[in-house]
Amino acid sequence: MSKQTVAHLEALRAEMARLHVDAMIVPGTDAHQSEYICEYWKSRDWVSGFTGSNGTAVVTLDDARLWTDSRYFLQAQQQLADSGFTMMKEAIAGEPTITEWLASVLAPGSVIAIDGTLFSINSVNALEEFCGLNGLRLATDFTPFDTIWPDRPLRPQGKIEVHSTEYAGESVADKLARTLSAVEAAGADALFIAALDEIAWLYNIRCTDVRFTPVTISYAYISASKKAIFVDSAKLTPEVSAHFAENGIEVLGYDDVARFLDKLPLETTVMLDPNQVSDTLNRAIECGRIFGKSPVSMLKGVKNDVQIEGMRRSMVRDGIALVKTFRWVEENAASGTVTELGVWNKAMEMRRLDPMYRGDSFSMIAGYKEHGAIVHYSADEQSDAHLQAEGLLLVDTGAQYPDGTTDITRTITLGNPTADEIHDYTLVLKGHVALASQQFPVGTRGVQLDVLARQYLWNEGLAYLHGTGHGVGQYLSVHEGPHSIRMNENPVTIVPGMITSDEPGLYRAGKHGVRIENLVLAVNSVSDAEFGDFMKFETLTLFPYDARLIDVSMLTDGELSWINDYHATVRECLLPGLDGADAEWLIEKTKKITR
Amino acid sequence: MSKQTVAHLEALRAEMARLHVDAMIVPGTDAHQSEYICEYWKSRDWVSGFTGSNGTAVVTLDDARLWTDSRYFLQAQQQLADSGFTMMKEAIAGEPTITEWLASVLAPGSVIAIDGTLFSINSVNALEEFCGLNGLRLATDFTPFDTIWPDRPLRPQGKIEVHSTEYAGESVADKLARTLSAVEAAGADALFIAALDEIAWLYNIRCTDVRFTPVTISYAYISASKKAIFVDSAKLTPEVSAHFAENGIEVLGYDDVARFLDKLPLETTVMLDPNQVSDTLNRAIECGRIFGKSPVSMLKGVKNDVQIEGMRRSMVRDGIALVKTFRWVEENAASGTVTELGVWNKAMEMRRLDPMYRGDSFSMIAGYKEHGAIVHYSADEQSDAHLQAEGLLLVDTGAQYPDGTTDITRTITLGNPTADEIHDYTLVLKGHVALASQQFPVGTRGVQLDVLARQYLWNEGLAYLHGTGHGVGQYLSVHEGPHSIRMNENPVTIVPGMITSDEPGLYRAGKHGVRIENLVLAVNSVSDAEFGDFMKFETLTLFPYDARLIDVSMLTDGELSWINDYHATVRECLLPGLDGADAEWLIEKTKKITR
Repeated sequence: MSKQTVAHLEALRAEMARLHVDAMIVPGTDAHQSEYICEYWKSRDWVSGFTGSNGTAVVTLDDARLWTDSRYFLQAQQQLADSGFTMMKEAIAGEPTITEWLASVLAPGSVIAIDGTLFSINSVNALEEFCGLNGLRLATDFTPFDTIWPDRPLRPQGKIEVHSTEYAGESVADKLARTLSAVEAAGADALFIAALDEIAWLYNIRCTDVRFTPVTISYAYISASKKAIFVDSAKLTPEVSAHFAENGIEVLGYDDVARFLDKLPLETTVMLDPNQVSDTLNRAIECGRIFGKSPVSMLKGVKNDVQIEGMRRSMVRDGIALVKTFRWVEENAASGTVTELGVWNKAMEMRRLDPMYRGDSFSMIAGYKEHGAIVHYSADEQSDAHLQAEGLLLVDTGAQYPDGTTDITRTITLGNPTADEIHDYTLVLKGHVALASQQFPVGTRGVQLDVLARQYLWNEGLAYLHGTGHGVGQYLSVHEGPHSIRMNENPVTIVPGMITSDEPGLYRAGKHGVRIENLVLAVNSVSDAEFGDFMKFETLTLFPYDARLIDVSMLTDGELSWINDYHATVRECLLPGLDGADAEWLIEKTKKITR
Repeated sequence: MSKQTVAHLEALRAEMARLHVDAMIVPGTDAHQSEYICEYWKSRDWVSGFTGSNGTAVVTLDDARLWTDSRYFLQAQQQLADSGFTMMKEAIAGEPTITEWLASVLAPGSVIAIDGTLFSINSVNALEEFCGLNGLRLATDFTPFDTIWPDRPLRPQGKIEVHSTEYAGESVADKLARTLSAVEAAGADALFIAALDEIAWLYNIRCTDVRFTPVTISYAYISASKKAIFVDSAKLTPEVSAHFAENGIEVLGYDDVARFLDKLPLETTVMLDPNQVSDTLNRAIECGRIFGKSPVSMLKGVKNDVQIEGMRRSMVRDGIALVKTFRWVEENAASGTVTELGVWNKAMEMRRLDPMYRGDSFSMIAGYKEHGAIVHYSADEQSDAHLQAEGLLLVDTGAQYPDGTTDITRTITLGNPTADEIHDYTLVLKGHVALASQQFPVGTRGVQLDVLARQYLWNEGLAYLHGTGHGVGQYLSVHEGPHSIRMNENPVTIVPGMITSDEPGLYRAGKHGVRIENLVLAVNSVSDAEFGDFMKFETLTLFPYDARLIDVSMLTDGELSWINDYHATVRECLLPGLDGADAEWLIEKTKKITR
C-alpha cells in the first residue's frame, strides 16, 4: 500500500506548494462529523494509508504525521510503514498535540489550510485562536482532493427508505412540532441540522449510505414555514418523494445547501449545533444565528413505547441468533478450525436467518485470549487467532433491525477456566449487576452512577479506562447522546426512555480481556411524596452470562438472585424461538446457579 | 424583638429616601464572605430580627422581604413576626428569587443599592447584568448602617496568636514560597486574599474574632517583594509583631487596604478570587489583575504529616470527651432530666477537661426523635426536648483544638429501638462504610464517589439531599474546600492529605433522623504499573457506632468486619485515656459484633 500513498502524499504537497500552503490538516471524519463515514470522505486514508476510525493526518512540505489513540498504535505503525508519515500518540502525556507540533515546526506567518467542510464550528474556532496566538494564518477553503484524487469514489447514492411509524412510533409531523417548539424555546425560529442520525430520526427515513448506521447523506432545515432536506436526487424513490411531499418537506440538492443558507431572510434566527455544523456552512449564513446543542439530540435520545417494544423484539431475535452462534463456537472451538473472524462470519450467518436483519451495528470484536485485552481489537487476516479448548473469548457485537439496534458483549471460557479468569469475570460481573440493579432519583446524571460498575475492580487496584455506558439509537447509530455513564461530567440527566449500555471490563495485557455488556432502559420505578420520584434500569439485552466463570462465593445473595432472575427472563424470552440442541443449550446455560 | 427592629427598618428607609435609593439588599455575610460572622457585620439581623446563618433581606420604601432556605423557614416565620418583613422561600420551585421579585416591584430607572464591601466580585457582576437587562441602576457604595445603627458593635479586637509550626507543620516562609510559585504559574505576580481562613493558614496565626472558627479579621497581600497583613493594631501582641517581623510581613491598618490596593504599581498583576474579594476592593485596584481560585485554598486543603498527626491526637482527646458525654446521656436519659441543650452543655463540660479545647467548631445539633429529622436543627429554649428511654437521638458536634478540628455525628437509641429505626440506621451505616472503605484511582473527583453513600437508600426509594462530604480545616474552618463529595460536579480531584467528612443521613419528617459522620483522610494505597496508582480513605474520627441499631443480617461479611476492625481501633486508641465506668462503657460499645 505504501508505494501508492507516497504518490498521493506527493500530489498533495504539489497542490499545497502551488497554493502557498505550508501545512494541511486532514481529519478522518466527514462533512457531518459522523463516527462511521463513507468512502467518498476517506481522504485521510487515501493520503496516508491508515484506515482506523480515529486519526488525523498533518502534512507539511517536508514532514507528515498522523495522530491516533492507543487503540490504533499497532495498526497505525504497520499501515504507515514507508508511507512518509510518522505516527503520533494522541492523549499521551508528554507527546505533542497537533497544534503543539505545528507551532514547533512552522515559522510565523505560515499558512495552515483545511477543508472547512470537514471541521465543526467549534474546532475551527479553536484553530483560529491557536493561529492567532502563534502568528499563523488559517485558510479554511483548501479542497485539494477534488483535483488530486482522480478515482475518488462518488458520494453514495443508496435509495432512501421510509422508516415506518410502525417502528418509529411517532409521525414526522409530531416530531417536527416538538422540535420546533424546543427551537423556539431556545430563542430561534429555525434549525439547521447536519447530523445524519438526527435527520433520519426527524424525517423518519433510513438508507444504506454508511456502513453500520442506516443514515443518508443529507442536511435538513426546519422552521414554522419551511421544511427542507438536501439530498442527491438519485437517492429518491416515488415512495420517499411522496413521503416528503405528504409531510411538507421540500427536496433540495445536497450541493445547494450553502446557497440556501446564504439566502435565508435576514430576519431569520437559525439555530446551529457548533459541534456538528461545519465551519464552511456557518460562514455561508448571513442571517441571525444562535449556537446550541440540537434539540433533536435530546428528543431522539428518549424512546417512545413503540420504539421500546421494537427494541425488545429485536433483542429476542438477536438473542436467538447469538444462542446459535455461541453454541457453534463452544462445540467447535476444540477442533482448532474456528478463528476469530470465523465467529463473526457465523454470527452474520445466524443473524441472516432473520429476514429483518439489516447488517451489523459496528465492526464485531472477537478477541481470543490476549486479543481480548486490546479494547478495540479488530481481527484481520494476519491476527486472526484459532480458538482452542481453553482461555477466554470476548465477543462484542451488535446488529441493525428496522425495529431495533443491538449491542452486546459476552466473555466466555472455551474450557478449564483458571482461578484468575473466574475472579476477573466475577469482579466485572458484580459491577455490571450493581449498575443494572441500582435505583436512582429523578435528576441523576450518568457520572453519579458510573462508579457502581467500577467499585469492585477499584477495590482490588484494577480499572478500565473506557466509559461504562453510551446511548444507543433505535435502528440508528449504536453510539448516540446526549446521555452517557462515564467518569467525565455530562450535565444531561437520565430520564425514562433513555437506553444506555452497561459495559464494565478488565483488560490484562498479554493475558485476556473481560467485558460484559447489556443495553438497559431507564424506567420510572417508585414515586414517593416524601423522598421524590425514582427510576431504575430494565435490562433489554437477552443472553446468558457464562456461569462457569462465576465465583458464587464472591456474590451477595442479592447479586445471585438478580442473575438467576435475569437468566429466567432470558430463557422465557428466547426459548420459544429455539428448538433441538439450541433449546437444550439455552436451558443448560440459564439453569439456576446455586451456592 | 419586633418592636425594636421596626424602628431600625424605618431608620433604614429614611436613609434610603434621603439618598434616593429605591431598594437595598442586605446580605447575611461579612466583608470576607465568611460562613460564621462577628456581631459587627450583623446588620441584616439588626434590621430584620432574623438570626439564621443564611438569609438575605431586601428592603424597598414600602415593602421588606427576607429570603432564606428550608432549614430556617420555621425560625424565620417566628422571628419575622410583626417585623415588617415577609419571609421568602429560597430555592423552592415557583417562588420568586430576589432579582425576580425586584424586577416585579421596581419601576424602570429605580436604584438598587448595596454595600459593595459585603458582595463578592462575581455576585456584583451578576447583579449588574440583572440591572442592565431590567433597566435598573445599581449603587454599590450605600453604607447606611454606619450612621443609623448607633450602638453598632465594634469590629472584634481579639489578640492574634501565633500558630506554632509544631501544629502547622510548615513555616510561613515555606508557605509563602509555595503560594507565590502557584501565583506566578497562574500568570500573576501578587495575590490579594480576603478569605480569613486562608490568611490564618498562610501566616500561621489564629484568633478569637469569630465564633467557631479561629480566624482574625484581616486582609493579606503577597508578592515576591512585599508581604503585608491588614489588621487593627489593637490585635497585636509583642509576640505576634515579632512573628510578622521575622517573616517579613508588614503590618498595615485594616482600614488602609483600599488605599493600598489603589496605590499598587501599575505594572503589578494581582490575582483575586472573584468569589471572595469584595466588589468595593476590586474597584479600588488600578493595576493589572487576573481572577482565579486562590491557590491557598488548594494548598490549605492538603494536610502535611504534622497536621495529620495533630488531627489524630485531637480525635483521641475528642473521642474521650464524647465517651464521657454519651455514657452520661445514656445513663440519665430515662430520668427525664436531660434535654437536648443539656447534651451540648455536657459535651462542652467534658471537652473542657482537656486544656487544649478551644471551643466548638460549629453549633452542636442534638436532635431527639422528630427533631433529628430537621437537618440543621438547633435547639433553643422553646424547642429543647426532654430525652426519655426511647427513640433516636442525633448528635452532630465538633471542637477546635490547636492540633485539630473535629466534626462527628452519631445517632443512638435511648431504648427499645423499633424495627424501622434499626432498618434506617443500618441503611445509612452501609452507605457510610461503603464510602469509607472504597479504594479509588488517582484523579477521582468527589462526585464520582458520592453515590456509594447513597446507593442503599436509593434502592429503597429513600434519599438525603445534603452533600456527603465537605473538607475540614486543621484548627480552622470546619467547612472548607476546595474538594467535596457531593452530587454536584466539582472538578477538584481528591489527593492524599485531603480530609473530608463521610456523612450520609436519612430524615423521616415527624419521626426521626439518622446521620452517621466520620472524618476521613485520603491516603495513597497501591501503586500498580499496569492499572495506575490508587488511594483510599483512612478514618480519623474515633467513636463507636450504636450496635443496638445495626441489623447484622443486612450487612455483608466485608461490612461487618470493617465495623469490627474500626471498633477495635477505637477501643485501642481511646481506652488508655479512660478508666472506671467510662472504660467499661467503651469496652461494651466496641465488643465484637457477630451474626
